[in-house]
Amino acid sequence: MTAIVTLLADDPLGAAREDLGPPLADSYHTAFDAIHADPNQCLVVAEDNGSVVGTLQLTLTPGLSRKGALRGTIEAVRVHATCRSRGLGARLIDWATDEASRRGCVLMQLTTDASRNAAHRFYDRLGFTPSHIGYKKLL
Amino acid sequence: MTAIVTLLADDPLGAAREDLGPPLADSYHTAFDAIHADPNQCLVVAEDNGSVVGTLQLTLTPGLSRKGALRGTIEAVRVHATCRSRGLGARLIDWATDEASRRGCVLMQLTTDASRNAAHRFYDRLGFTPSHIGYKKLL
Repeated sequence: MTAIVTLLADDPLGAAREDLGPPLADSYHTAFDAIHADPNQCLVVAEDNGSVVGTLQLTLTPGLSRKGALRGTIEAVRVHATCRSRGLGARLIDWATDEASRRGCVLMQLTTDASRNAAHRFYDRLGFTPSHIGYKKLL
Repeated sequence: MTAIVTLLADDPLGAAREDLGPPLADSYHTAFDAIHADPNQCLVVAEDNGSVVGTLQLTLTPGLSRKGALRGTIEAVRVHATCRSRGLGARLIDWATDEASRRGCVLMQLTTDASRNAAHRFYDRLGFTPSHIGYKKLL
């Protein structure tokens, strides 16, 4: 799990939001256990020679909208700095899309910070439509 | 449940996406059962004299990002046409925000279609920040 959090922190926005310790904060372990216990959460990593070089979380959400559609949501996509521009991000998104489809989702969605211009081009290329505005509020 | 689906369909975007029957499609019943069985889903309605006049779905998602933060996501917000501009939508969002906070969320998020200008003003007023772009892809 430390390898995943390290990826989350290795990012202009993530760096200020994570705390690598050591030791890693208990809150990460609590969250990992909750993800692991929830069949609607899929936290995956990409490995290269035994090293974690990419991650994303796929969440399946049942809802009544769109004739009771199950939707997939992708969060926390990261690829290690040394492995970028080699198609690994696209493979992660393709995996998530296939898995969501296999489990009955009719829609895949994600949000990305408005400042991540490279990410916008990436999702455009993968066939996603920037049709929505994503709002956040800290509680 | 028919009352909730009727609200979802009573909307410029929703009208083309729902199917009120009768009878209501089995897929709505399947989705309702999945929502009901999942402790991370809260599907709520607002009632006025026994009539369903508003609805939203709150989803709690555990994740490693932001020090293992639990996040709340709001989807499928609707208020009956005859009850708009009376603060009911704000009360629904406030309820979801309080409930998410009570259950340990540190962040609330939602996306709204880029064409819903009135919704953008609504969420701005409620203290949400339009910091993200929301991407969708039909599977």
